[in-house]
Amino acid sequence: MDFVEELRKKAETARAASRVLAQVSTGKKNAALRHMADVLENHSEAILQANAEDLREARQSNVKRSYLDRLMLDEGRIHGMAEGLRKIALLPDPVYRGDFSTVRPNGLEIRRIHVPMGVIAIIYEARPNVTSDAAGLCLKSGNAVILRGGSEALRTNIVVAGLLARAAKETGLPEGAIQLIDTPEREAVDAMLRMHGAIDLVIPRGGAGLIKHVVETSSVPVIETGTGVCHTYVDASADLDMATSVAVNAKASRCSVCNAMETLLVHRAVAEEFLPKMAEAMKKAHVTLRGDEGARAICSDMEEATEEDWSTEYGDLILSVKVVEDLTAAIEHINRYGTGHSEAIITRDIASAHRFQREVDAAAVYVNASTRFTDGEEFGFGAEIGISTQKMHARGPMGLMALTTTKYLVYGEGQIRE
Amino acid sequence: MDFVEELRKKAETARAASRVLAQVSTGKKNAALRHMADVLENHSEAILQANAEDLREARQSNVKRSYLDRLMLDEGRIHGMAEGLRKIALLPDPVYRGDFSTVRPNGLEIRRIHVPMGVIAIIYEARPNVTSDAAGLCLKSGNAVILRGGSEALRTNIVVAGLLARAAKETGLPEGAIQLIDTPEREAVDAMLRMHGAIDLVIPRGGAGLIKHVVETSSVPVIETGTGVCHTYVDASADLDMATSVAVNAKASRCSVCNAMETLLVHRAVAEEFLPKMAEAMKKAHVTLRGDEGARAICSDMEEATEEDWSTEYGDLILSVKVVEDLTAAIEHINRYGTGHSEAIITRDIASAHRFQREVDAAAVYVNASTRFTDGEEFGFGAEIGISTQKMHARGPMGLMALTTTKYLVYGEGQIRE
Repeated sequence: MDFVEELRKKAETARAASRVLAQVSTGKKNAALRHMADVLENHSEAILQANAEDLREARQSNVKRSYLDRLMLDEGRIHGMAEGLRKIALLPDPVYRGDFSTVRPNGLEIRRIHVPMGVIAIIYEARPNVTSDAAGLCLKSGNAVILRGGSEALRTNIVVAGLLARAAKETGLPEGAIQLIDTPEREAVDAMLRMHGAIDLVIPRGGAGLIKHVVETSSVPVIETGTGVCHTYVDASADLDMATSVAVNAKASRCSVCNAMETLLVHRAVAEEFLPKMAEAMKKAHVTLRGDEGARAICSDMEEATEEDWSTEYGDLILSVKVVEDLTAAIEHINRYGTGHSEAIITRDIASAHRFQREVDAAAVYVNASTRFTDGEEFGFGAEIGISTQKMHARGPMGLMALTTTKYLVYGEGQIRE
Repeated sequence: MDFVEELRKKAETARAASRVLAQVSTGKKNAALRHMADVLENHSEAILQANAEDLREARQSNVKRSYLDRLMLDEGRIHGMAEGLRKIALLPDPVYRGDFSTVRPNGLEIRRIHVPMGVIAIIYEARPNVTSDAAGLCLKSGNAVILRGGSEALRTNIVVAGLLARAAKETGLPEGAIQLIDTPEREAVDAMLRMHGAIDLVIPRGGAGLIKHVVETSSVPVIETGTGVCHTYVDASADLDMATSVAVNAKASRCSVCNAMETLLVHRAVAEEFLPKMAEAMKKAHVTLRGDEGARAICSDMEEATEEDWSTEYGDLILSVKVVEDLTAAIEHINRYGTGHSEAIITRDIASAHRFQREVDAAAVYVNASTRFTDGEEFGFGAEIGISTQKMHARGPMGLMALTTTKYLVYGEGQIRE
């Protein structure tokens, strides 16, 4: 059987499973999640063995050190995956939650409720914990899931997904609720992306290259996640100590993630006072600065920022710095170079704060806080399936509700339309 | 300038306009809508002249009579378009409406509000009234719109869109808020569909062929609209008079629209009593019946339904009829052949009603009412931009809210993430 045929079969099995899953009670789904957690912990040895083989091969192909770290599992990380599933079991069930109701003049009663999407595909890269997170979130929201991890983690993912699928089945959930594409061919992804109708939604999680490929190839609806060229703008009226502390946090608390700041914009009026102070704090946090002309006129030891810097997601301890004339220039810069993820203003002025929040076009717009808070946990949604940087369906951190669609329930007594 | 270059310029102008439009007050938008309505009525002669030319050419190329009817404008229809715009002015503004707020343990205040999408493209076929409807709905929701009508209506659309754009500008709205693609090349549509990032959303309105083409070509997010293979299921416990009246309404009140019924499913236990009664009523309404074996065993003068019938959207006074064993078989048939638009059960039994509504996977699931009610006006949303048959973003009738996305506003006092 070739892999396209195999994929089509997986999608059909998933569709059948999704019909059943949509009707499963919250209690039964939670029991499955807890059992999945136990099974992972009870079989950690098998998982670690497969992971060791993946690691060995990855080392031979000279991948980056940070990549190896993402790929690597140990007892602690497996426990973390299990705890993640147990936490999903504690979250409220989004299915059948109502969000609208009305009675029409003709007596028709209309309710809108949330229901599962159906079949969701998740395409991701190195980290094997996404396998359990994504499976858990899709299951809790009543969806069947087809997982496709990075080929470097294939052995690990085969064991993890196999254990999860078995555990789900053992608690009475349908065969096909959790499936993994276990062929390494890249064409398998492309084939899946053309299965419009068979798959309801695809969520790519990973680098810009993966996401771009999915967006350009897919006829299945996509939710784009993750690319973050985030800014912090220090206004003329800013509390400069707060600005320094927030900026260091936004850049350096974890520089590899999408909600980290990449560019700092500073109002000309405070640049002379703020920049040296900020530069010193960034130096302590091992951040390299790249300034525009205005910034380097004040801090001459900054590297020179080029046009390319303004649209670069460094994912590293590098920060570009620009002095702007005013709030208008800051907003224009952000709307031009930003990716619509998370943007912040540091200000004491209510009119500046208000205008910044209105005119900046992004998923999350902060006043006086670090962009690093854009996260499902931090927003109070519990676990997240990713952070959407597109405008359709869901924007910003996506919790369980983002994995549902809606259905109108209409109750009549024989009404007909004139 | 070739048309791809021209298109890219239109998209850029639209983006700039959208930044301004997002901040325009409700009062100013409503004033623009009313002025657009007046301008259409005051220039009906120019519109009718262009329309006469479109009609003349269409007649020469031997298009269907129903097509000519959709293309044709007269004073009454132009007045209808103007009234449509005035009605949109009366609808509540969706922009800045909040739908979520929370305060986190660290003191961060988070609000979610609705904001315009940005730049929306609408691709449609014959009817020139879509030009004014779509322009009005996009404007009211703060979006810039790029319109692409059918090539047969090009002259009419050029005049109508030109008047609307001029009227919008006269009331102080930005240049580029309303634009039309005025080149007949089909490649212009394809070029637009690849402008991911420049255009935020594309909504195709028209036949299945157009929608399929857009879904398969577009890298811009799409909302699929319209295809409706809708069913009515007459349960064993149904009030058969109600079933007849609802079925005739669902099929024959307007058979060309997407919420019309295409297949009638009848429980075996009532088939013998119900089918002859129903067949007589359908005959009076000039509906041709195509039955499966079970139906034809009772009403032998029905034509024979083939496998193809079950997935056909007739858009005509034709109805396929099938006798099913039970509710389970009805649900299975619907989930297999339906397009997820509108489905109805006629029943007196509460358990059947409940199960049908839970297990049927569609945008709107009715108990004891005609599927013809799936419509923005009938649901109380005011005008609609279309009926979504996909699961992402919006499902079912789409009012103004479907043309918005959301933005998280976060207020802090210098919070940083640990």
